[in-house]
Amino acid sequence: MSSRDLGGKSIILRIEMDTEEIKFGRVVTAISESGGDVIAIDVIQTDRQITVRDLTVTVTETTQINEIIDRVKLLKGAKLIHVSDRTFLLHLGGKIQMQPKTPIKNREDLSRVYTPEVARICTAIHEDKKKAHTLTIKKNTVAVISDGSAVLGLGNIGPHAAMPVMEGKAMLFKQLAEVDAFPICLDTQDTEEIIRIVKALSPTFGGINLEDISSPRCFEIESRLNEELDIPVFHDDQHGTAIVLYAALISALKIVKKSIDEIKVVITGIGAAGIACSKILMAAGVKEIIGVDREGALVNSQSYNNEMWNWYADNTNPNQLSGSLSDVIKDADVFIGLSAGGILKRKDVENMAADPIVFAMANPTPEIDPKEIEDIVGVMATGRSDYPNQINNVLSFPGIFRGALDCRATEVNEEMKLAAAEAIASVITDEERNSYYIIPSVFNQKVVEKVRRNVIEAAIDTNVARKIPKQFRK
Amino acid sequence: MSSRDLGGKSIILRIEMDTEEIKFGRVVTAISESGGDVIAIDVIQTDRQITVRDLTVTVTETTQINEIIDRVKLLKGAKLIHVSDRTFLLHLGGKIQMQPKTPIKNREDLSRVYTPEVARICTAIHEDKKKAHTLTIKKNTVAVISDGSAVLGLGNIGPHAAMPVMEGKAMLFKQLAEVDAFPICLDTQDTEEIIRIVKALSPTFGGINLEDISSPRCFEIESRLNEELDIPVFHDDQHGTAIVLYAALISALKIVKKSIDEIKVVITGIGAAGIACSKILMAAGVKEIIGVDREGALVNSQSYNNEMWNWYADNTNPNQLSGSLSDVIKDADVFIGLSAGGILKRKDVENMAADPIVFAMANPTPEIDPKEIEDIVGVMATGRSDYPNQINNVLSFPGIFRGALDCRATEVNEEMKLAAAEAIASVITDEERNSYYIIPSVFNQKVVEKVRRNVIEAAIDTNVARKIPKQFRK
Repeated sequence: MSSRDLGGKSIILRIEMDTEEIKFGRVVTAISESGGDVIAIDVIQTDRQITVRDLTVTVTETTQINEIIDRVKLLKGAKLIHVSDRTFLLHLGGKIQMQPKTPIKNREDLSRVYTPEVARICTAIHEDKKKAHTLTIKKNTVAVISDGSAVLGLGNIGPHAAMPVMEGKAMLFKQLAEVDAFPICLDTQDTEEIIRIVKALSPTFGGINLEDISSPRCFEIESRLNEELDIPVFHDDQHGTAIVLYAALISALKIVKKSIDEIKVVITGIGAAGIACSKILMAAGVKEIIGVDREGALVNSQSYNNEMWNWYADNTNPNQLSGSLSDVIKDADVFIGLSAGGILKRKDVENMAADPIVFAMANPTPEIDPKEIEDIVGVMATGRSDYPNQINNVLSFPGIFRGALDCRATEVNEEMKLAAAEAIASVITDEERNSYYIIPSVFNQKVVEKVRRNVIEAAIDTNVARKIPKQFRK
Repeated sequence: MSSRDLGGKSIILRIEMDTEEIKFGRVVTAISESGGDVIAIDVIQTDRQITVRDLTVTVTETTQINEIIDRVKLLKGAKLIHVSDRTFLLHLGGKIQMQPKTPIKNREDLSRVYTPEVARICTAIHEDKKKAHTLTIKKNTVAVISDGSAVLGLGNIGPHAAMPVMEGKAMLFKQLAEVDAFPICLDTQDTEEIIRIVKALSPTFGGINLEDISSPRCFEIESRLNEELDIPVFHDDQHGTAIVLYAALISALKIVKKSIDEIKVVITGIGAAGIACSKILMAAGVKEIIGVDREGALVNSQSYNNEMWNWYADNTNPNQLSGSLSDVIKDADVFIGLSAGGILKRKDVENMAADPIVFAMANPTPEIDPKEIEDIVGVMATGRSDYPNQINNVLSFPGIFRGALDCRATEVNEEMKLAAAEAIASVITDEERNSYYIIPSVFNQKVVEKVRRNVIEAAIDTNVARKIPKQFRK
């Protein structure tokens, strides 16, 4: 096993020891001397001469793992059976499971949840399809659908390899918002086929969360499904990011005391997320947005192969600024990076307007290291959890679907997205807010309830709610 | 609400009472006098003058429900808000839920099950697709897929109305065999489209249970998917029924002391289940099977519009018996009914060979009422739970998929099906076996483990197991 497989800081060594040849203390000493700290011991098997134990070992540096492994292998009488780390162990057999809500204890229970009694429920839904929203899991279940074409920073790794991300998402849906989500990774990357499949799957679900589908196919898939289905379809990579970005911007603008309709914004990386971020900012009142990608600032005097870029150039950059990022960032109030590590220079930030807002969201390496510009930036945020102000879409999707399901919304429209962003920003009070705390943690328990409430209100106001939950009835 | 909606023997009345106008005792008396028995009271809301209570009431006859409702409505000061029965209540919001296997308690947990650490799991699977079987829910998850075209006895009620059956099936999978099953009802009845969709969904699952898909489409769908996928595809309406039927026959033949290769079998209803039952019996060694459908006994001198009937006529009925059921049942040892209530007459059974075996499995009304032939039958079984010897496919699918998943089988082949049937029959010992007890109850806890073991052994013997579980290693 190469050290490459072992990025975690905690590993488990399964070691078989011949008790006549080696004392357990020597194994522990060997591990300690190689920089490991034995924090737990589980005896797996033991007989007269042989014992097998799992040792949980923490290290401070990943490189120490190989040292420990090599050292243990040299011990006479000890045999290293395998090494696993906690992350791999957590994934064994998958991260989620299906649970009946009630046990089937006897024949009477069986006859109610299955034949013959279940036929009465089927008939009730057959007579009135709306009842599927109350009498089946459709009421509370969202499909998390990917084709594995644009997974995290890993790219097109396919449906099997994408599953762990979708399972993780399903865990978050449940834990944060009590939404039952089921992950489905599709073995096709054909746009029309994906649309047909998701439509065919839709009777089971109350909402569709599209995930990690590459641009530009994701636009067509999402917009067609939104038109053709009567349940919400939400591409999280686009709108989740956009909503949390806008929430962070609401907060940041309060700190630097600028108004949203007066700012100049430069965005790098005009893919799915960049376009969605631009759209939500336009809807929120931003007047000057300049998009920058590999060909420099997008201008409508040029024609691009990428259809979305042509649309983008036609609808942004009112002053037709052209040139490189360094050229167009002069006097900008806000930089939004959704591109690649290291492309923003300190000099560029120096050229921005007073109290510049820099959201460098490239993962894992931001467009600029926060430490490089600490002294000159107004507000700084990244996509990482180890810097202040993490822009993390885990803040948005649980509450959005919680709200959409609770009011049986037919879609998640622009008004609902803006309302969700405002809810996230509102979790932080004026007293709490400072340049290192513009956005709540994903573990802040107020987030989901506030997002839910705003989303339901916006759905009712825009007439896409098919049900008004009791607390919203006037 | 009509009494038609209230087949259950227990209902819940939500009643609002004005405490100044009516005493609670009078409500209870009124219900008792109408034949109801108040067995539980839940106070839902109460203030100075108004109380709302849920009364759980049992009745002996369904007709009493309307009497109770009418009587309560006449009470001054009491208002009947709604009536629900237990079956409907059990279905509110669906019967299953998704659960994370471990909670996400803090940022470290989050970073392991989701970004950034999850990327290491994705990469491991991307490098070796087989790892999806250990590191994702594929290891233990089965899709229960229907198009809603042939649901129970209800027919083509569509995907929304079919969901409660599939959810019930998912409950049984989990409770009986610890298999995580997820129900998916497809909004298409196009054979090719269903095949494409199930193939596209397959990366997520370790097996596919097809359910309630009408004949003849179910044959093409199952056989094509079996060819084109490397995970087991099992149409339960066909093979589940066939396996349990064969298990019952093994037991019944022991009672009447006949050998399987000497019996004459007549089967009525040559649809999906009838054909599957015939095939398993042929594989088990039965030499003479005569199939009877609306056109009488199927003979190969005739040509049928139904392609499967032509295949059937070519492969059964070696003596080319023709005519009606009454004609061909003479001297038959076994009658298997998968057709319609009441089509078999006492006179037909009188004309069968000595100790006739009659499996009248039509639901809800068997081909002949067991009481009518009690005195002349050797062994009698039905599909109903209120007669002895219920032939219920809940006995087979949980253990079959448990076994197939545990050995990572690529298919469920004929050998595995025969082995499953033998396992079910073997649960009953020679001492226990009698004409009223030929097959175990679905709640018999030995069934799943025995089926699992036989299925795994057969999978290993036929080289379709990709993994040999420890207890099966030689």
